[in-house]
Amino acid sequence: MALAPSEILAARLRRVRGHVEAAGLDALIVTHLPNVFYLTNFTGTSAIVVLTADALYFITDFRYLAAVQAGLDTRIGCPGATLVAVDRSYDETLAGVLKDRGFARVGFEAERMTVARFNWLTAALGGDANAVSPGTARSGGAPVLAPTERVIEGERLRKDAHEIETLRTAAARLSQMAPAFLASLSVGETERQVAARLEWTIRQAGFDRPAFDTIVASGPNAGLPHARPTDRRLEAGDLVVLDFGGVHDGYCVDLTRTVSMGPPGPEARRIHQAVAEAQAAAIRAVRPGVAASAIDRQARDTLERHGLGEAFGHGTGHGLGIEVHEEPRITRRPPHDEVMDAGMVFTIEPGAYLPGFGGVRIEDDVLVRDDGCEVLTEVPRELVAAGGSRDGGHEPR
Amino acid sequence: MALAPSEILAARLRRVRGHVEAAGLDALIVTHLPNVFYLTNFTGTSAIVVLTADALYFITDFRYLAAVQAGLDTRIGCPGATLVAVDRSYDETLAGVLKDRGFARVGFEAERMTVARFNWLTAALGGDANAVSPGTARSGGAPVLAPTERVIEGERLRKDAHEIETLRTAAARLSQMAPAFLASLSVGETERQVAARLEWTIRQAGFDRPAFDTIVASGPNAGLPHARPTDRRLEAGDLVVLDFGGVHDGYCVDLTRTVSMGPPGPEARRIHQAVAEAQAAAIRAVRPGVAASAIDRQARDTLERHGLGEAFGHGTGHGLGIEVHEEPRITRRPPHDEVMDAGMVFTIEPGAYLPGFGGVRIEDDVLVRDDGCEVLTEVPRELVAAGGSRDGGHEPR
Repeated sequence: MALAPSEILAARLRRVRGHVEAAGLDALIVTHLPNVFYLTNFTGTSAIVVLTADALYFITDFRYLAAVQAGLDTRIGCPGATLVAVDRSYDETLAGVLKDRGFARVGFEAERMTVARFNWLTAALGGDANAVSPGTARSGGAPVLAPTERVIEGERLRKDAHEIETLRTAAARLSQMAPAFLASLSVGETERQVAARLEWTIRQAGFDRPAFDTIVASGPNAGLPHARPTDRRLEAGDLVVLDFGGVHDGYCVDLTRTVSMGPPGPEARRIHQAVAEAQAAAIRAVRPGVAASAIDRQARDTLERHGLGEAFGHGTGHGLGIEVHEEPRITRRPPHDEVMDAGMVFTIEPGAYLPGFGGVRIEDDVLVRDDGCEVLTEVPRELVAAGGSRDGGHEPR
Repeated sequence: MALAPSEILAARLRRVRGHVEAAGLDALIVTHLPNVFYLTNFTGTSAIVVLTADALYFITDFRYLAAVQAGLDTRIGCPGATLVAVDRSYDETLAGVLKDRGFARVGFEAERMTVARFNWLTAALGGDANAVSPGTARSGGAPVLAPTERVIEGERLRKDAHEIETLRTAAARLSQMAPAFLASLSVGETERQVAARLEWTIRQAGFDRPAFDTIVASGPNAGLPHARPTDRRLEAGDLVVLDFGGVHDGYCVDLTRTVSMGPPGPEARRIHQAVAEAQAAAIRAVRPGVAASAIDRQARDTLERHGLGEAFGHGTGHGLGIEVHEEPRITRRPPHDEVMDAGMVFTIEPGAYLPGFGGVRIEDDVLVRDDGCEVLTEVPRELVAAGGSRDGGHEPR
């Protein structure tokens, strides 16, 4: 894996420490694993980071200790990390770290920490879980737990040079494998078989794993925006929506194309054309200074002009990075209506879903640059007709 | 998919409603998706349930509305569910449902709800997020949010007839595919290639998807209990730990075997034998009335007698069901040291990890029955020697 070199991690840590200091915190508890990965390159499934102005306590358990210790001194090691082994439980070890250091005010990720864990920690630190709420000062020497939101997520919004390079490589890889796969669909295959072949192909292309459960929705199932693959067999005349992605060196890319089994009929062509126009309009709108909701509006207005406004019920896109759904959200009313800035990476994926008939979605990944928009995925957007021989592909059947 | 029939859902709802009533709650907010699935058969990725004594409000968004609506009247539909479409956001729609119904006291899943969501909801319901903490009564007509823990998880601990049948089928399927796959490993394949082949085989066997990221750890990497597959090529003399699972009709099964590339040496045989003994001892201890920690102790004591106590740093097992890691936890000091009862399903997976040398883990899935223990997975536990021709398997290369 080509993970972020230590100097990139150092720069991330510097920026996050700036936020921690500005918020008047002695430390930040990082429990959200994608944020832990962002700061440390840790790829396991259990760890907690406690970040202070001059230290980083890395709490993990037996399963990961040896690997993490060995990684610290490499060129992708986390600078200045102190390894803390979990003794009885993560929570108890975390409480121990917080108490021993005599912190007065410790931030936590309020969007990630559960109420139960917060209450437990509060009690363990010497407060009373049921009488104290986030951010309230307490008597005695116990640290106050202060809720924070989007401290690290805010940094992750703008990808750094390492992340952009990783996402470009991943998107190019996905783009390269997609056309042959799309052309390989054949009448008689089930959606589940297609999904299995597709995930196999994603791994063969060198991805660590699929970025999410692959969607293969055919015929009437394509009228459901998020159908799961079923045992339905592809039939001549079907539209088939394929939504798939891969994880490369910890970063997710995501692509959707719609394939016609045999020559598409006029209604299929009309809907596909409208969705393609909506996508192009949204992509044209992507540049620094534009609000996420304004990009969404471009796609939505286009579909409404084609009489397909009601058929497009979901958002236009979502951020991509360590998580396959992250900020910015490109929707009508995003919780945070981000103004585009260089380094943001997200999907543009309008669709139209007509119950009983079927549906179309077209999705690409874009990067905001100072000079506009770079489309990272490059796969023909025309409505591909497949459905030929079942012996055409290289993939396992 | 053969999901739970409506009458099974009705029985689950009846039991959970009993707990809700006993806790003096007018309603329970269910945000944990596996719990939503347990109550409703919903397999999507976004939904919230509000359960009252005589109603079930099912909140979901555009993407799932049509599919959920269509499913309600089938034999696997959720009895008595009222569909509520998300308008602006899940949280706003949830707040609307809670306010409109005039509830006085509403439970929420404290181990699942984040502090940020709790604070937002509290404020939206007419309280003050930063002055009120979980469970505090408030003036005015706004409902009080009361933390609950393990209401539905407690029910899920003992599998019902539908779940046991589903898990048996899944375990039999995994057992059937495993031996040929284990024998197919060949020198020169990379861990990542093996993992890709294995996940493909899992899908071909009819599973919805792998239950987790497959572990293939070879040679020194097998000395790390939770290594990710790397580009390391299998070598003669390696021990290879393969830990894999599948999801069948929403339920997870999980299996680990260790393979020797070529004839194993004396140290490999010794360690494998010790781990196999530890596993057998733990399995023998499984019967109603025994504490989870006592089962763990059987495995741990056995390995200690073989001088491998330090080499076994993780727990002996974890519950299986809708989640691949759920209760009961079979560890030294589980947060809840469950006493075994008929219907519990979990893994027994001791291991020994020797840095530099490699490691062994053997894992099976067991069901507690009134009369003792049923081992659901049935795959030879001997140290299999593989490493022959690369052309032997049916799987794609």
